[in-house]
Amino acid sequence: MAAKLKGVFTPNLVPLDSRGDINEGVFREYIDWLIERGVHGLYPNGSTGEFTRFTVEERRRIVKIACEQCYGRVPVLAGAAEANVRETIAACEVYHEYGATAVAIVSPYYYRLSPESVYAYFREIALNSPIDVTLYNIPMFASPIDVPTIRRLAEFERIIGIKDSSGDASFMCRMISAVRPVRPDFSFLTGWEAAMVPMLVVGADGGTHATSGVVPELTKQIYELTTAGQIKDAMKLQLRLIELFDVMLMSADFPEGFRAAVELRGFDFGRGRQPLSETQQVDRVALQRVLQCILADFGVVDPPQEGCAVRTGAIGRDKVLQVTEAVIRELRERGIA
Amino acid sequence: MAAKLKGVFTPNLVPLDSRGDINEGVFREYIDWLIERGVHGLYPNGSTGEFTRFTVEERRRIVKIACEQCYGRVPVLAGAAEANVRETIAACEVYHEYGATAVAIVSPYYYRLSPESVYAYFREIALNSPIDVTLYNIPMFASPIDVPTIRRLAEFERIIGIKDSSGDASFMCRMISAVRPVRPDFSFLTGWEAAMVPMLVVGADGGTHATSGVVPELTKQIYELTTAGQIKDAMKLQLRLIELFDVMLMSADFPEGFRAAVELRGFDFGRGRQPLSETQQVDRVALQRVLQCILADFGVVDPPQEGCAVRTGAIGRDKVLQVTEAVIRELRERGIA
Amino acid sequence: MAAKLKGVFTPNLVPLDSRGDINEGVFREYIDWLIERGVHGLYPNGSTGEFTRFTVEERRRIVKIACEQCYGRVPVLAGAAEANVRETIAACEVYHEYGATAVAIVSPYYYRLSPESVYAYFREIALNSPIDVTLYNIPMFASPIDVPTIRRLAEFERIIGIKDSSGDASFMCRMISAVRPVRPDFSFLTGWEAAMVPMLVVGADGGTHATSGVVPELTKQIYELTTAGQIKDAMKLQLRLIELFDVMLMSADFPEGFRAAVELRGFDFGRGRQPLSETQQVDRVALQRVLQCILADFGVVDPPQEGCAVRTGAIGRDKVLQVTEAVIRELRERGIA
Amino acid sequence: MAAKLKGVFTPNLVPLDSRGDINEGVFREYIDWLIERGVHGLYPNGSTGEFTRFTVEERRRIVKIACEQCYGRVPVLAGAAEANVRETIAACEVYHEYGATAVAIVSPYYYRLSPESVYAYFREIALNSPIDVTLYNIPMFASPIDVPTIRRLAEFERIIGIKDSSGDASFMCRMISAVRPVRPDFSFLTGWEAAMVPMLVVGADGGTHATSGVVPELTKQIYELTTAGQIKDAMKLQLRLIELFDVMLMSADFPEGFRAAVELRGFDFGRGRQPLSETQQVDRVALQRVLQCILADFGVVDPPQEGCAVRTGAIGRDKVLQVTEAVIRELRERGIA
Repeated sequence: MAAKLKGVFTPNLVPLDSRGDINEGVFREYIDWLIERGVHGLYPNGSTGEFTRFTVEERRRIVKIACEQCYGRVPVLAGAAEANVRETIAACEVYHEYGATAVAIVSPYYYRLSPESVYAYFREIALNSPIDVTLYNIPMFASPIDVPTIRRLAEFERIIGIKDSSGDASFMCRMISAVRPVRPDFSFLTGWEAAMVPMLVVGADGGTHATSGVVPELTKQIYELTTAGQIKDAMKLQLRLIELFDVMLMSADFPEGFRAAVELRGFDFGRGRQPLSETQQVDRVALQRVLQCILADFGVVDPPQEGCAVRTGAIGRDKVLQVTEAVIRELRERGIA
Repeated sequence: MAAKLKGVFTPNLVPLDSRGDINEGVFREYIDWLIERGVHGLYPNGSTGEFTRFTVEERRRIVKIACEQCYGRVPVLAGAAEANVRETIAACEVYHEYGATAVAIVSPYYYRLSPESVYAYFREIALNSPIDVTLYNIPMFASPIDVPTIRRLAEFERIIGIKDSSGDASFMCRMISAVRPVRPDFSFLTGWEAAMVPMLVVGADGGTHATSGVVPELTKQIYELTTAGQIKDAMKLQLRLIELFDVMLMSADFPEGFRAAVELRGFDFGRGRQPLSETQQVDRVALQRVLQCILADFGVVDPPQEGCAVRTGAIGRDKVLQVTEAVIRELRERGIA
Repeated sequence: MAAKLKGVFTPNLVPLDSRGDINEGVFREYIDWLIERGVHGLYPNGSTGEFTRFTVEERRRIVKIACEQCYGRVPVLAGAAEANVRETIAACEVYHEYGATAVAIVSPYYYRLSPESVYAYFREIALNSPIDVTLYNIPMFASPIDVPTIRRLAEFERIIGIKDSSGDASFMCRMISAVRPVRPDFSFLTGWEAAMVPMLVVGADGGTHATSGVVPELTKQIYELTTAGQIKDAMKLQLRLIELFDVMLMSADFPEGFRAAVELRGFDFGRGRQPLSETQQVDRVALQRVLQCILADFGVVDPPQEGCAVRTGAIGRDKVLQVTEAVIRELRERGIA
Repeated sequence: MAAKLKGVFTPNLVPLDSRGDINEGVFREYIDWLIERGVHGLYPNGSTGEFTRFTVEERRRIVKIACEQCYGRVPVLAGAAEANVRETIAACEVYHEYGATAVAIVSPYYYRLSPESVYAYFREIALNSPIDVTLYNIPMFASPIDVPTIRRLAEFERIIGIKDSSGDASFMCRMISAVRPVRPDFSFLTGWEAAMVPMLVVGADGGTHATSGVVPELTKQIYELTTAGQIKDAMKLQLRLIELFDVMLMSADFPEGFRAAVELRGFDFGRGRQPLSETQQVDRVALQRVLQCILADFGVVDPPQEGCAVRTGAIGRDKVLQVTEAVIRELRERGIA
């Protein structure tokens, strides 16, 4: 039996070149950088990785690069959702050949399916996939996978875990109650870093956290402190992580805030696939200045030359937002003028 | 300037063969059958057409067949949403070559985007598409397109209309108020046949109605009665249409109930792309028996040999549901036994 | 049997004096004014009447004044929801003595109850009320009353109608389909004036419209045009009504925008029960200036001395909103300065 | 300055006698029983206490009894929400005289108010209440209180804490980040026992947990284990608590399942204020049988004579639900027969 998935997996953002194509060079460098900073696994083609905005061929190329560049240093959990069951199973086969550790498959989206349909969908995949499958529950974007359905699907050996992005600690408890007694090897990953510590405390095995693509040092430290029982220290960092997470999440449409942040770590990720309006382009410049201040506080980048407003712990978040607004106002005026 | 889109467009279901591939022969026959029964246009690759469950190549083939088989008898509004702006514009180019009348593009889905991002997305398409574009608002499944955004987008000549599936008559009024004074040629189509008459009454130009793929005779009649001002007669049919619509919509995950119904009109549509559980397969048999009774009432099919429960107008809907439940129970018992 | 409830009922706002108590004098004048302008009935203690913000004794006094002042000129539909079934039935008894025509009882709120509980609640009332009862469905604020439950409750003769504020024309169709065949006397009232015409077209008997408390002339005219089959003329006014409705609804927390508007008709309604922050007080002044321009367009008040921005039909709504924002900005600056 | 509110507060269910009035004798016994079993405080007139279903006079009597019966053994947090600000402040004055420790005031409900209105409402109370005030956020039932508003309200010394029933651990983190640096004495209580351990872990000071009215021994133990850092042991109990909580919450409309459970502890709580349909009465008998099995597992009551299905830890919950369904079916058949 394969090792249980655990720790912090990075849902990889994808760098693009000036023509809007995958920037393979930067992607490979970025993967090395992440692994060197201690992420426990990679997760290409997740929501953070904007899998819906790439073509079938591009999604395959992304996983291929990830598997090659990893060459076994850390596990690769490859997002394999395609247009329908047949195409998804085909992707499973390809990713198995590429050497991925397992695939993660988001529940059917666009249509909101009933639990029975969600079951039928994953059942078909479980029966035909040559590679281990992780369910991916993200009720904000896709058909929810409820606890009884997870329980039924856990009867398939091929299904080895679930990644849940609901952010609901009680739901995590319910899943664990329902599944762990019959499948102790089943892996529970959370996709919501704003609740990373509480999720680990109630029994999650780890998480796939977009912020680990920006500050892998920090998410690793929170994971290690929490699993070592040093909850109070972990919580101090958790609160600061939420500050960063909220700014990235709320100042732009997901995942543009994360793209803006990762650039500050020294990677040219290029323009995203979703076009930005003029207003949004101005906002993004302002957002980056604020993010630079937050990242400087973590000691991972230099502060901006023009300096940062004084920020005192978590309370600073509001100040940061005020600064954001002020900067945005200023830039908009200049932009319009 | 092209003629304004108006009347009832059929969002085409796609027949599949025994291998799960597009059944071109049945599809062509079905298109002829629809046009003969008076639908005013075709709408391939809509939500009813399960566009997300087909590959890029299949989506193109679907539009190609539709355009060919129509050869100008009625307009073709081709669903053109692809993974990203570039791919969507490429689809616009191809569908333009195929001779489609216009394309309909659903607002970005999976991620819930802000109005500003929705604007930026359609703006990019409007500036680059060689074919007229209809916005497609379906807030149940995709990022909502709000009235101010519609207003801004109506400034692009290339954008010629909106298909709205919210089912909200007040929203239709607000859109018309905001856009018609500046763009009298802008077409407003509703995608919610449960409000077909009220939507036409408040000023919609027509609709894309999945039920028109099952009972084109009926939707055509409702449209003609309403536009002729015979509202009371139209409303009698509207209430009966809702009965049929509700059974198709609520007895199975969309659009499986519509697939079940169209088969009763004599077309073999094959198994859908979304797998059905055993329970769902049994339910589907029961559903078809109920649907046959409703369609027999419209005089478009024969009643089932075993007869139908007495149904007296709209009140019958509850009885129908009771029958459904009874039949389902019976079949389930047999199915399990 | 009593006459079926039909036409436009005004959900009465309650004027308060300088101590925050019910201003009986103004309330009586206001009722006369409404009846003189042709409203078909009064509806005290509705949501617009802020029934939850008055004490038990005040609610009774409101109904008493309404019944006295009407003295049979128009029917009074009295809101009778109290803390529990026993208290609600007690209110029914009192309102019966006061001479109310019927009571309207909102579905249980705060807790979201299941259909079975909603049924049990109204069943108890139906069995014990000495006065006819209208169900009140407002899913935005209270437990929803679904179609099967309405159907079950329509079996009680004491229940004579439903007021539905969902604004969903399809839901209106479903209710009518389910109930009218067995209870042709059952009254269907809509509480959503943004869909007044479509609701009447699909079969509603009338509505309880907060805007009729501000422009009774206009709602009466829309009702009469629609019931006379002059739909196009009715729709022109419907679109203008939506403009007014939206500004009152969206520029302040409900029903403060309606309180601001009714004052422009010459009544001193005093400060509402829900306190306003300083910002909100400034906003209210700006809102009134905009409302005065809209009401001046209807010819029911004079325009403000400083004039109005040019407004051309429905498209003016955006302009109005722009003006609102400009005025608000200006006043805020002054307010803070 | 008063001691910070902390620990487990019991939101008191209210026993009723055969006429439906408050059963003072049982209520006093019940309060003694709770205090003897170690609850840290009482919380009369909360959602569990069905405050909306009592009259003004009854709510006062409930708090009076609670304060008297406690006579200082544990703090009393009295729910003080009334129809409007003036009445609420009057209740604050009365409860202050009764000797309550503080009041808890739910955000305005029925209407969904904006943050600015929520602020204005609590500001007015903070400026006029003679007794310390705890905000009560329960977005499921009432207008949400967002983090910036909590932060603004924390500037009033009179406001000493918040009870949050959102169940969202990330929201708890955000509140703590925003308020604790400026108000270290501010108390954070969670109202969602399905997340009791994670909430305490991220920094909550305690909770108001309806289950503590049923199994005070258990909630006390979870609280003590968690605050002592014995997280793993606490989590074992947390999972079992969720099992009980879910059955009480999901098998009947809140809080009827809790009323059914507390009766098993030996108190006659009488019929609730919200009437039950015949079906619901049968369901309630079945529910109690299941609850008795769960409570027997905790060792606090004897198992039912007819025995319980074998239950093995958390996994048993599904079995329990199966049993529930079986029993319900059986009883329904008997009930109908």
